[in-house]
Amino acid sequence: MPTYRVTLAYDGAPYHGFARQPDLPTVQGTIEEALGKVLGEPTETSVAGRTDAGVHALGQVISFRTSEPFEDLDGLVDRVNSMCGPTIVFLDAAPTQEGFDARFSAEARSYEYAILTRRAPDPFARHTSWHLPAPLDVDSMQKAAAALIGEHDFSTFGRVEEDRSPVRIVKSLEVAQDGQLVLVSITANSFIQQMVRSIVGTLVKVGQGKMGADEMASVLESKDRQSAGQVAPPHGLFLVSVTYPEDLL
Amino acid sequence: MPTYRVTLAYDGAPYHGFARQPDLPTVQGTIEEALGKVLGEPTETSVAGRTDAGVHALGQVISFRTSEPFEDLDGLVDRVNSMCGPTIVFLDAAPTQEGFDARFSAEARSYEYAILTRRAPDPFARHTSWHLPAPLDVDSMQKAAAALIGEHDFSTFGRVEEDRSPVRIVKSLEVAQDGQLVLVSITANSFIQQMVRSIVGTLVKVGQGKMGADEMASVLESKDRQSAGQVAPPHGLFLVSVTYPEDLL
Repeated sequence: MPTYRVTLAYDGAPYHGFARQPDLPTVQGTIEEALGKVLGEPTETSVAGRTDAGVHALGQVISFRTSEPFEDLDGLVDRVNSMCGPTIVFLDAAPTQEGFDARFSAEARSYEYAILTRRAPDPFARHTSWHLPAPLDVDSMQKAAAALIGEHDFSTFGRVEEDRSPVRIVKSLEVAQDGQLVLVSITANSFIQQMVRSIVGTLVKVGQGKMGADEMASVLESKDRQSAGQVAPPHGLFLVSVTYPEDLL
Repeated sequence: MPTYRVTLAYDGAPYHGFARQPDLPTVQGTIEEALGKVLGEPTETSVAGRTDAGVHALGQVISFRTSEPFEDLDGLVDRVNSMCGPTIVFLDAAPTQEGFDARFSAEARSYEYAILTRRAPDPFARHTSWHLPAPLDVDSMQKAAAALIGEHDFSTFGRVEEDRSPVRIVKSLEVAQDGQLVLVSITANSFIQQMVRSIVGTLVKVGQGKMGADEMASVLESKDRQSAGQVAPPHGLFLVSVTYPEDLL
């Protein structure tokens, strides 16, 4: 069947997460309704990162199939954007090979978390960053972060369904100061639920001096969610990009 | 009387402009109510730029007086921010000399207007930029802008009260491309109402090829609002900073 790939951005605030839910506004529900109208047939989407309620995306990827080839992809982008925008915006749509699946073909997902560390809040960053009134010790956070890189059981930092593995491969995890912002960037093959926000909350505990950087390894090994920091609020988190094997693009 | 100067930022969206109005949420009304509670006496503020409904500020300046000296200005900032934030945020408060008045002492005001020029909207810039789906000819816009620099009667670009002068001195006016954004930056001694947005709307007309850059001089001279472009929407406009004489700071 003809298969298409779309890159999209969205503001997570108005939605109860990505995944379709009956009677609740979700990103997937909104997109599928619009695609159904444009394509003239019920359309199901597969998604690279099922973001939680309130989490944003700059470069989310979805795929879908149609019964007949659909040519006017620029027109599709414009029509979906006029129906879903400006909170959900299709950036690009392209035909892709049969068998491509935004979720199962993805090799890695990259997220970024923004923390504003200054006494006064910022009216223009209030929907896109976590405001903490005091500076964070970024060096300690980076040191603690190093303990999480690699293949580990991440049960400490999130939920998994009973029959699924909590093992993930964190490929990179960086903490950087950018003016009054602290940015946490993380790439992994995939994530268990709440994993990025729980890691960020734990790194913040380190940055605030409430936990030693050298404790991170034992926190990871504990597989006990109580030993992690708080789950950071969703509005500071962005799904930035998704990586696919070269031969699928 | 003890006199104080405050620098503040605000998101203009929730407010019916800066200036106090009965029964409508305004920036001034919100601030004065908070200051009254903190200072324990009714407090009137003077403001450098009376922004219109929906217009934002990054570095607005107000001044006010108190009957007795007030020492804890950091505490004042925190308390006002907890009452007014996060849409209005005091960034800094300091004592200043008697006779300082945020409005009448100001030498110049600087505004910036952001235009997003790309086909798809941006979910994260929708409250802070004007979205136009096609690129603009920035070189022509800059050429047209040059005709407005200097001391002129700006009746073409805004409203003045009957007994007031429409003459203003534009000190600088620049149009710059920054990726998919076009930024218009303007500094003047002061502005008549809607002047920045009307100039931006006229520059956009030039950037879209609907008006020649060399027509700007005659549009300015016409003193006819019909000859200007549309008034650009308020949510792309920011009051960036205010300049005072050195000896008053």
